[in-house]
Amino acid sequence: MSVLPFLRIYAPLNAVLAAPGLLAVAGLTIPDMSGRSRLALAAVLAAIWGAYLLQMAATLLKREAGGVRDRTPAIAIDVLAVLVPLAAFLLVGTPDRSLYCAVWLLKPLRDSTFFPVLGRVLANEARNLIGVTTLFGVVLFGVALAGYVIERGIQPEKFGSIPQAMWWAVVTLSTTGYGDAIPQSFAGRVLSGAVMMSGIGIFALWAGILATGFYQEVRRGDFVRNWQLVAAVPLFQKLGPAVLVEIVRALRPRTVPAGPRI
Amino acid sequence: MSVLPFLRIYAPLNAVLAAPGLLAVAGLTIPDMSGRSRLALAAVLAAIWGAYLLQMAATLLKREAGGVRDRTPAIAIDVLAVLVPLAAFLLVGTPDRSLYCAVWLLKPLRDSTFFPVLGRVLANEARNLIGVTTLFGVVLFGVALAGYVIERGIQPEKFGSIPQAMWWAVVTLSTTGYGDAIPQSFAGRVLSGAVMMSGIGIFALWAGILATGFYQEVRRGDFVRNWQLVAAVPLFQKLGPAVLVEIVRALRPRTVPAGPRI
Amino acid sequence: MSVLPFLRIYAPLNAVLAAPGLLAVAGLTIPDMSGRSRLALAAVLAAIWGAYLLQMAATLLKREAGGVRDRTPAIAIDVLAVLVPLAAFLLVGTPDRSLYCAVWLLKPLRDSTFFPVLGRVLANEARNLIGVTTLFGVVLFGVALAGYVIERGIQPEKFGSIPQAMWWAVVTLSTTGYGDAIPQSFAGRVLSGAVMMSGIGIFALWAGILATGFYQEVRRGDFVRNWQLVAAVPLFQKLGPAVLVEIVRALRPRTVPAGPRI
Amino acid sequence: MSVLPFLRIYAPLNAVLAAPGLLAVAGLTIPDMSGRSRLALAAVLAAIWGAYLLQMAATLLKREAGGVRDRTPAIAIDVLAVLVPLAAFLLVGTPDRSLYCAVWLLKPLRDSTFFPVLGRVLANEARNLIGVTTLFGVVLFGVALAGYVIERGIQPEKFGSIPQAMWWAVVTLSTTGYGDAIPQSFAGRVLSGAVMMSGIGIFALWAGILATGFYQEVRRGDFVRNWQLVAAVPLFQKLGPAVLVEIVRALRPRTVPAGPRI
Repeated sequence: MSVLPFLRIYAPLNAVLAAPGLLAVAGLTIPDMSGRSRLALAAVLAAIWGAYLLQMAATLLKREAGGVRDRTPAIAIDVLAVLVPLAAFLLVGTPDRSLYCAVWLLKPLRDSTFFPVLGRVLANEARNLIGVTTLFGVVLFGVALAGYVIERGIQPEKFGSIPQAMWWAVVTLSTTGYGDAIPQSFAGRVLSGAVMMSGIGIFALWAGILATGFYQEVRRGDFVRNWQLVAAVPLFQKLGPAVLVEIVRALRPRTVPAGPRI
Repeated sequence: MSVLPFLRIYAPLNAVLAAPGLLAVAGLTIPDMSGRSRLALAAVLAAIWGAYLLQMAATLLKREAGGVRDRTPAIAIDVLAVLVPLAAFLLVGTPDRSLYCAVWLLKPLRDSTFFPVLGRVLANEARNLIGVTTLFGVVLFGVALAGYVIERGIQPEKFGSIPQAMWWAVVTLSTTGYGDAIPQSFAGRVLSGAVMMSGIGIFALWAGILATGFYQEVRRGDFVRNWQLVAAVPLFQKLGPAVLVEIVRALRPRTVPAGPRI
Repeated sequence: MSVLPFLRIYAPLNAVLAAPGLLAVAGLTIPDMSGRSRLALAAVLAAIWGAYLLQMAATLLKREAGGVRDRTPAIAIDVLAVLVPLAAFLLVGTPDRSLYCAVWLLKPLRDSTFFPVLGRVLANEARNLIGVTTLFGVVLFGVALAGYVIERGIQPEKFGSIPQAMWWAVVTLSTTGYGDAIPQSFAGRVLSGAVMMSGIGIFALWAGILATGFYQEVRRGDFVRNWQLVAAVPLFQKLGPAVLVEIVRALRPRTVPAGPRI
Repeated sequence: MSVLPFLRIYAPLNAVLAAPGLLAVAGLTIPDMSGRSRLALAAVLAAIWGAYLLQMAATLLKREAGGVRDRTPAIAIDVLAVLVPLAAFLLVGTPDRSLYCAVWLLKPLRDSTFFPVLGRVLANEARNLIGVTTLFGVVLFGVALAGYVIERGIQPEKFGSIPQAMWWAVVTLSTTGYGDAIPQSFAGRVLSGAVMMSGIGIFALWAGILATGFYQEVRRGDFVRNWQLVAAVPLFQKLGPAVLVEIVRALRPRTVPAGPRI
């Protein structure tokens, strides 16, 4: 285990290293790049692969000492980040093999403290989010059907089938508006306006549900953390628990007024 | 009534079956599809129709036993899902008759637990949502009028009447931006900028109102549910009701600290 | 004053009548409309004008009896809705005179209960909203300057001056994306990506501030209303005020659990 | 120090003066502007520069008297607003020198009370905002890679490398939709639809996090301010602190019911 300190690389480096790696992957796909630049980018990929190899070793050695359960995803990511590019290098012949380094996209997820929170919020709001997504699908199909019926006579090359009309519907419902398929009839334009409004409404539902989910999560996290702090302060132990609860909830202090008259 | 178990299909299947059915409807509208694929898709439609027939039978038989009131919408959806395609098949001659299977869009709404919540939120916030929609309409008309006055001399084919200008206005106000009607004058572009801003503002209002509505709904739901749980725990009965209320509100626990000092 | 009941028209009619009126105004601007349709639309405008004349009379007569202050805006809207079209009819010769009926856009604002709430929210959040708008302006100018410097050599006809670049900037920052001005250089496209992100961020700030504002408003409104109801119920008077406050806050009941153990 | 009152200009003037200054900068970049207009705009710039010179002097003189720490950013902005245009005027020969007046964009940030609040919200939510931005980057790269693989054979001039595909990805993910790069294959369009949805979801996450952040900030600010007011009212001192806390939290009063029965 004495080799561990030499293998260990600083954890955030984990995520940060992925950025130059992915940029190098992107750069290697540019067609008119000189052989020299191409070589430099390949060297960057090799160096990062080496760093990830060290990190995987450190993770696996530490694993022998510590608990396994919670760290399984981290270990899986570390192993994948080494094995997938290696396998691509050995097995894939074309220049496309550098694309497999895109597995490093997983690295930023590995040590983030945000993704567990996001996961809990999505889990708590799963019912509502699935509901809105269902609503989105229903509206999308209904709208594509209506657009198909209204416009198929006028623009058969854009609205000639429901799948084609659905392309228009999703571009409009998300208010992206590429402008490659636009209804020409009066009815089609009224429908378009209604679709845009529905899109904004569904979007607002999504935002509202996620805002609610985050606030619930933050509020519960703060309550648990502050309770433990406040309940231990002798000054506060004379107070009834109702006041204590209130104080706990009004905190993330630093700013609580000096001598409240109690 | 002994036939009921054989007729009953698993409830979520209800919603999930609609997806392949609607995809088949969409596929049947593609013009250059071979007769064989067309037949396969029609068979899919027939199979799903059969499943929905069984389900309708199960629903109607169960209805004899149970209460009628709350289940009226479910029964109506089940009956429509069977009768509308049947009527279309018998009465409509053209290939369009498969479009009538789009009535199956109602199926996902049937057993969802989200839509009642959404309905309550919309009902509670109805006043505000109608207000924002009115504001949207007023801004839309005012903006179309201004765009018409400013641009009608420059682009009579795009801004030659208020209905035409309204198409530009709704595309801009919803920030869709197809790009088929774009003001050319300086004043028209300043107006466009203001319209985009208003659109974002109205959209933000919508999101804010819905977020508020959802949070209110969630908070009330949690309070009622948790109160009944907490009030029954002997440990908590020594506490005054003020603390109880607080505990109730801080919950969806699992994570409440072990031994708070009370 | 015995003439009042005959003059009075039902208040919501106020707002609803504006819709056909504005549609008629829009219809009259369509160039290729037959003289007969044109006459019919003019008749609609005249009829609505007559209804608004009656309503103004009712409002003014009632004014003699009641208090003046709070009703000044309503009176002003009623008078404008009559006088502006009348003046336009008498003074303006061209077909444009029907456009002045657009003053009826004010009618839906007259009796709405939403706009006072919106006004209070905007007033409470004025500091934040002005701040975000300032931020928007600062980002808009900075981005237009950067776009001008980067792209003026490549596309002088689209990015040849800061005002032109600002058109691109506002279309991008609001994520409208007409597609008439698009950066071609690599730096310009990286800038565009950053602008879109900033636009989404500013939009999210707006939504967040308005959501907060609405929630504060709703919470205060509910508290005041429910306090008066709950404090009057004898059952609740044995409780300490801390519980009372809590109960008040958990309400919009109908759903409060039957017999909480207190 | 008797010269100070003559040097001092009203603080909001600070921010407001920047607007005509920046408009003049924008105007000076218009190619076909007459020499006379150009001179007038330059005179505007000179006048504003003079006003900012006076303001800097006032700020620096006041600095000798007062504390330095908190005012360092304000002093820095004032000095930059004078020195950068001066240096540009002396050192840069081309007409571009007026562009350096864009440093006045900092002026509106100087006295705003909103930006400190925004800073605190961003700092409190930094973890979540960095998380969402990371998620955005990961999705952006993954989507660009998928778009590149799917469309490079069909449209090599639009999707011929990952950087090119990333332009399409960012335009779609932010729902801007310029319409200059649009997938043509069926798989590409399904991917596009999924990207738009993800974009709306990420946007909604941003809005939800910022809404939560603002609400937390507002709630804490109100609590501290109201506590100090309420705790000093003799009428309220008979109440237990639990009620006091509640009353404090339900406030921004004016509207609290007259005589609650306690």
